[in-house]
Amino acid sequence: MPVEIERKFLVDKTLWQKLEKPEANFFRQGYLHTDPEKTIRVRVTNTSGYITIKGATTGASRLEYEYEIPKTEATELLDQFAETSLIKNRYILIFEGKTWEVDEFLAENEGLLVAEIELESEDEKFEKPDWVTEEVTGQKKYYNAQLAVNPYKNW
Amino acid sequence: MPVEIERKFLVDKTLWQKLEKPEANFFRQGYLHTDPEKTIRVRVTNTSGYITIKGATTGASRLEYEYEIPKTEATELLDQFAETSLIKNRYILIFEGKTWEVDEFLAENEGLLVAEIELESEDEKFEKPDWVTEEVTGQKKYYNAQLAVNPYKNW
Repeated sequence: MPVEIERKFLVDKTLWQKLEKPEANFFRQGYLHTDPEKTIRVRVTNTSGYITIKGATTGASRLEYEYEIPKTEATELLDQFAETSLIKNRYILIFEGKTWEVDEFLAENEGLLVAEIELESEDEKFEKPDWVTEEVTGQKKYYNAQLAVNPYKNW
Repeated sequence: MPVEIERKFLVDKTLWQKLEKPEANFFRQGYLHTDPEKTIRVRVTNTSGYITIKGATTGASRLEYEYEIPKTEATELLDQFAETSLIKNRYILIFEGKTWEVDEFLAENEGLLVAEIELESEDEKFEKPDWVTEEVTGQKKYYNAQLAVNPYKNW
């Protein structure tokens, strides 16, 4: 079964701002359903659409099934069916051979920066860039589905 | 937006049993989420898997977004995430140039036979085969999502 293993960290804003970065991809994503056992997400990026079913998180792991769908239909699904949603810019950076995804949240979550690294196993070793700070893996308030309900500006 | 327009009828069991029919396709389907505004269904057939998002029914119409997914993953999604499910045999028959889908429900819904015809518009005319009886379009208890919760044997 397709398992996603990822660890999540906060980002130092000052160092991040000084960093030379690639162009971001703009994500709009919404949730058709969330409960403790599963999340059904629709995402629209600059070029594509996706529907993703994720299971509950255990440690740094969760089941994840993702399917690419036409961008226009993903937009319609969000408009018609999303209970909650959020927007963010996503940056992809390579550091010491590993891929980091950094989300710069927008709108109600403006000011929040979160970096994620996807791993092959829970105990995989990796180097952290200097702009990566506190680990927040598994902290529910940082789940995107949660940020769509209780955004950063309300914390 | 992709709209499904279909009318639904009961089937005369005696005439149906005497009918020469093509081979059926076995469907197992479950619901990851249902509410009055939307249904998120995963279906496994003999050969394929599908994830389908349907909107609320208005008259004989509803929004429908369907995506084919690997059969093994559809099976896993059902096993992991379906809140409710059902099984049925589906027969496809052509009558007077139109396609009829006849569902022979199994297990908890054994004994229920329902025929559906998909239309281009709500007022489209069509001929009914003699084995088609009472119309049940829009009757909630015949919704598949509903049959998964309150099966025919409990009626």
